[in-house]
Amino acid sequence: MIRSEDTICAPATAIGGAIAIIRVSGPKSLSICEKIFYPLDKTTKLINQKGYTILFGEIRYGDEVIDEVLISFFRSPHSYTGEDSVEISCHASSYIVKKILELLISNGAIAARPGEFTQRAFLNGRIDLSQAEAVADLIASTTKNAHAVALNQMRGGFSAEISRLRSELLHFASLIELELDFGEEEVEFADRKELKKIIINVKELADRLAISFLIGNVVKNGLPVAIVGKPNSGKSTLLNALLMDEKAIVSEIPGTTRDTIEDTIVIDGIEYRFIDTAGLRETSDVIESLGIKKTHEKISQASVILLVDEISDSAESINKRTDAIRESISGTGKRLIILINKTDLAPSNQSKLTKEIRHFDDETLLFISAKKKSGLDELRLRLSEVVMKDKLNSEGVIITNIRHYESLMNVSESLDRVLSGLDHNVPEDFIAIDIRQTIHYLGEITGEITSDEILGNIFKNFCIGK
Amino acid sequence: MIRSEDTICAPATAIGGAIAIIRVSGPKSLSICEKIFYPLDKTTKLINQKGYTILFGEIRYGDEVIDEVLISFFRSPHSYTGEDSVEISCHASSYIVKKILELLISNGAIAARPGEFTQRAFLNGRIDLSQAEAVADLIASTTKNAHAVALNQMRGGFSAEISRLRSELLHFASLIELELDFGEEEVEFADRKELKKIIINVKELADRLAISFLIGNVVKNGLPVAIVGKPNSGKSTLLNALLMDEKAIVSEIPGTTRDTIEDTIVIDGIEYRFIDTAGLRETSDVIESLGIKKTHEKISQASVILLVDEISDSAESINKRTDAIRESISGTGKRLIILINKTDLAPSNQSKLTKEIRHFDDETLLFISAKKKSGLDELRLRLSEVVMKDKLNSEGVIITNIRHYESLMNVSESLDRVLSGLDHNVPEDFIAIDIRQTIHYLGEITGEITSDEILGNIFKNFCIGK
Repeated sequence: MIRSEDTICAPATAIGGAIAIIRVSGPKSLSICEKIFYPLDKTTKLINQKGYTILFGEIRYGDEVIDEVLISFFRSPHSYTGEDSVEISCHASSYIVKKILELLISNGAIAARPGEFTQRAFLNGRIDLSQAEAVADLIASTTKNAHAVALNQMRGGFSAEISRLRSELLHFASLIELELDFGEEEVEFADRKELKKIIINVKELADRLAISFLIGNVVKNGLPVAIVGKPNSGKSTLLNALLMDEKAIVSEIPGTTRDTIEDTIVIDGIEYRFIDTAGLRETSDVIESLGIKKTHEKISQASVILLVDEISDSAESINKRTDAIRESISGTGKRLIILINKTDLAPSNQSKLTKEIRHFDDETLLFISAKKKSGLDELRLRLSEVVMKDKLNSEGVIITNIRHYESLMNVSESLDRVLSGLDHNVPEDFIAIDIRQTIHYLGEITGEITSDEILGNIFKNFCIGK
Repeated sequence: MIRSEDTICAPATAIGGAIAIIRVSGPKSLSICEKIFYPLDKTTKLINQKGYTILFGEIRYGDEVIDEVLISFFRSPHSYTGEDSVEISCHASSYIVKKILELLISNGAIAARPGEFTQRAFLNGRIDLSQAEAVADLIASTTKNAHAVALNQMRGGFSAEISRLRSELLHFASLIELELDFGEEEVEFADRKELKKIIINVKELADRLAISFLIGNVVKNGLPVAIVGKPNSGKSTLLNALLMDEKAIVSEIPGTTRDTIEDTIVIDGIEYRFIDTAGLRETSDVIESLGIKKTHEKISQASVILLVDEISDSAESINKRTDAIRESISGTGKRLIILINKTDLAPSNQSKLTKEIRHFDDETLLFISAKKKSGLDELRLRLSEVVMKDKLNSEGVIITNIRHYESLMNVSESLDRVLSGLDHNVPEDFIAIDIRQTIHYLGEITGEITSDEILGNIFKNFCIGK
């Protein structure tokens, strides 16, 4: 698994641009490059090259010039991995990239596994595990909030808090273990009242962080939204109206089209993903009948349900449909937004319907015209409120990683046992075991406690070259 | 068109890797970055930064940290464009790239047009026009030969020859124009015999280069190959066998999968593109009848035709089909390779068929078994010979650009007029005009003579960020 004696190499950029970067890291980075790189100034020795400098020259294979390149040098420990590293900036031809990698490998480098550069940064103590995980999140971030949370985590905002708690617990664990060493002598180094206060503090924080995963997950993966309603109520018109506005905004910046513009919108830095819109994407939504099974499937995957009705419908029929949705989301925490569409066709109905349509405090009733694009700003506002309501419950640091969530849940459970033990005067050695267990779970998050299996699972999801 | 007072910016890498590079070039490169980049060492002034060095720090928008980045500095004239330039190396998140570009633009940079960095390199005299064009070819190169030709051109191998010819002609043009100045005095500064020798030399070279376009085009764009034959003759099996071997080779290098593996193979550095294989890609080729129209369409697009027959067929029927193909390619220079497939089923037929099947010197007859993969190496060899035969006709420099081809054809034509003029004692002023015209056409190739329209056409086909 760990192979820090080796020098690894990989392309760090995607095929398709003007420039490609090939990363090399490990003890032989410079000596391997020395064999294939010919600097403009022939007297230059790569092995003497200072960090944070660049050389221009040629990559050659025998007499064949492969490319004219720039090489950036980083010297241990002042590099991303903490090792001697170089970055080769070449023309982004797939032939050139392939050839340079072949040359590096034939001169002693090995092909890096996904995430291996970041894994080395972790193993060399440059960053902790939660910071390493944030690097992948940062690269994947497409919205303001996902970016902010990942960047904060990468910069250690999250780890600092975990480490502080961990060292407080370590302190008490030592004191209690000291008591055990004194055996029968009934000394009490660890103040039980103080300990209980600390344990409650840690548990509160662990719970708060665990709860923040609900919003964190939304920030990282977007909020799934279902558009449902009877045929011809204007679902596709609504979807297109929301997407069209979004596309106009996105296409303003040259060269940065989103990977998948289709069927997602971003409001206030949160991504809203519309579920299963294949049927809606047709020019008319007539083809989609209100199939009960299909609607239920969509609702089950969504966090927010947009129920689209028409202003020409009777309040009775609207209430009936709404009740059906309500029943299926009851107790799930899913949010319902009732949209009365086509206000342009019968605006006079609005006041009557407003009185007659039932809706509850945790629901939203909105009158819109998808065709005329009226009421859509209000809809966007209400969508973002759905997230904000959850956000209010979790101040400060937000966790986005299910591995951290699971560790925090374990922390909370083992602290419950400690508290219960303190209340029931359970022997010190049992309490000490539970505290040690808690410390272990906290250590898992930052990587102070780890295993090859955990590391393998984390880094295999990285892209090559990071 | 030319806006060298501006500072331009663009992403230089494709969305999708670990690292993204944003390029900035122009007089304000450093002062714009100074406003958004906060180096680790706060006392560092970007404006004082030496070229070929790197700084680590943060890109910030007000209090918000956008990313931790590396910035590489290049000072005029020692940069790609010849201007002050910086390259920002950030995490490859679409949000981060977009945000950094927004910040650069809001601080005074403008979004670069496709190819604008290379265009500036040309306008600042760093490279000539044919070298600039080779940069785009180099990036697009996916095979050894395409890469070698583009790299040679980028490094000026081609331009040097053109420039030498141009200056020889310029010398003679001046001498002839000097004679004109002396009017009636009947002096002859330009030795007519010497001039004629030079003109013939230049014309020979121009013709040779123009002819090299035939092979150059193959090197750059690949050789189109049609697989035709009656249903069930094993066309799809043959295609898959050729592609499978190729895929196995390509997939050996991690992270460098080709853009389109499908339906192209590379032999000895030349790409062979199989035309219209949609029908063949089915598990069986039964569905494709030998529709005369469809077959003719494929043949018309191809340079090489693989006619697949079966060893169990009669020589008579094979000869009949071959004659039909022969007729349609007669006089086109297309090559025919007759493949007798399924040798594993009836190997004993081979010697009889060898005698009875008609084939001509410029054709190839091969016995293969696509299923057992026998005879495929021989087929590859014959395919590469098709190219080599053409290659033998053009030694040395190869041109791959249709714009150069057209200029060279114009050179050749105007030199024909000069030669005819010399032979028929046409007045000096007419000869001088034709020589000037030749010089103009040669200058178009390297960009010594150019227009905004030509430049616009060349650089619009570049990718953003180059």
